[in-house]
Amino acid sequence: MRWANFDHEGDVWCGLVEGEAVLVAARGCLSQHLGDLPTLETAARNGTKLALSDVKLRQPIIRPGKILAIGLNYAAHVAESVSFISNDKPEVQKWFNKQSTAANGPDAPIHVPKVSEQLDYEAELVLVIGKYGRHVPKERAFDIIAGVSCGCDCSVRDWQKASPTMIMGKGFDTHAPFGPHLVTLDELGDLGPLAIRGYVNDELRQEAKLSDMVHTIEEQIAHLTAAFTLEPGDVIFTGTPAGVGAGHTPPKWLRPGDRVRVEIENVGTLENPVIAEPDTMRIG
Amino acid sequence: MRWANFDHEGDVWCGLVEGEAVLVAARGCLSQHLGDLPTLETAARNGTKLALSDVKLRQPIIRPGKILAIGLNYAAHVAESVSFISNDKPEVQKWFNKQSTAANGPDAPIHVPKVSEQLDYEAELVLVIGKYGRHVPKERAFDIIAGVSCGCDCSVRDWQKASPTMIMGKGFDTHAPFGPHLVTLDELGDLGPLAIRGYVNDELRQEAKLSDMVHTIEEQIAHLTAAFTLEPGDVIFTGTPAGVGAGHTPPKWLRPGDRVRVEIENVGTLENPVIAEPDTMRIG
Repeated sequence: MRWANFDHEGDVWCGLVEGEAVLVAARGCLSQHLGDLPTLETAARNGTKLALSDVKLRQPIIRPGKILAIGLNYAAHVAESVSFISNDKPEVQKWFNKQSTAANGPDAPIHVPKVSEQLDYEAELVLVIGKYGRHVPKERAFDIIAGVSCGCDCSVRDWQKASPTMIMGKGFDTHAPFGPHLVTLDELGDLGPLAIRGYVNDELRQEAKLSDMVHTIEEQIAHLTAAFTLEPGDVIFTGTPAGVGAGHTPPKWLRPGDRVRVEIENVGTLENPVIAEPDTMRIG
Repeated sequence: MRWANFDHEGDVWCGLVEGEAVLVAARGCLSQHLGDLPTLETAARNGTKLALSDVKLRQPIIRPGKILAIGLNYAAHVAESVSFISNDKPEVQKWFNKQSTAANGPDAPIHVPKVSEQLDYEAELVLVIGKYGRHVPKERAFDIIAGVSCGCDCSVRDWQKASPTMIMGKGFDTHAPFGPHLVTLDELGDLGPLAIRGYVNDELRQEAKLSDMVHTIEEQIAHLTAAFTLEPGDVIFTGTPAGVGAGHTPPKWLRPGDRVRVEIENVGTLENPVIAEPDTMRIG
């Protein structure tokens, strides 16, 4: 099944995407229903049908409890990163947070920050956690995953490099777009052979198979849950292939007017326009 | 004013702490009322009065939207950290996340993880954000802070050291205790002269003035909000003085049966027992 959140009647609703239609299931974010998608499906099949083209899709989890992301998880990207991160291939999984406030949806603008010109893209497979998990062994990792989506781990390279913890360059507002749908695992079969591609303005920049990951999805879930609990609605960015802007000479930073596209075979296409950060100052 | 969350009638409630009493204000977490504490105060003064000794206090924000923490923010701690973090004093603020699932309250147990024996304490001043803030200039930083509290930035040193991003060693379940109260700034005046102390089993291990911070609170808020929005209920750990367990030879790790105490002058005392991690495995 393909689930989505969308704006409808002045609120966020969730529903089932079938072809060019959305079957409206319930008011509120998908995150409230991850524990019982069969009941949500029944509601959808008894609900209103809207044309997909008539609704504005939002990210599959409006506000994730946490967004985790792994760095240097495709070998060819590790190689290109030496020039700008100066890291060897990590023996241990290299995790960082993207701030929950960075969550963003399909077609929603990504900001070139006022404080940097070094905005970069990273096409990634995103996991959406569907059940609580702690100390989850590798062989049961997929039990806690509700589904997958496409994501762009937007990265502000100078801010990322300024500290080895990286989080300041990874958590800018608007910099965690994901979507357009939450695709359940039964739709996909084995993820390994699926191609992931990243484009800027229709130019192919990144391409790999999901099986090229250094640390597998199962290893990621086992490692994270050895330390802490994953919860329904948590979101995991699983790493990016080679071809990021910083890997080019000279670097190819994103500029206002660009469009970034992440495609994952059978999963979907996420596209976002890039704009200059508007006046975002806020106190109160 | 001193605000607190506590268990009452099978739910979380919030109220005003005065002397040895709690004036019950409202059902639910303080986080829902940070935008209008005067109205909450009126409710408290018209509410039931309970003996402080009769309620179980919880952390001032039950589930923070995000928990941010700064590393190496007291000069003497930077010096002792060379042995176990190998970092020079950072020119740029060194931020990491503690996972929101790590939030924990006063008197609640801290787990020695199943996967490590290197559990360490870090006594810290904690800020609770009360208003939205983006691009907040230093001179207005305190405008978005609802109040402060005591916190212990529990750290699993081998997991922290295993990756330069540090977050795996900082986000274990139960490892972000803070409390006991949210103390509003008008109670405190200038924070700089206040003493912060960390104890293990009544042995003084850490002591400094809040003015010993390398990067001030104002600088922290300005830096964070240059990148992303701080929201009501976000929580910030502002760094720890010298004297952590890892700074001793041999290291003094926390063990089951220990008690960790964080005292900040005029702010309060946070105490937590240390226990072996119980059976926490969970799938579903």
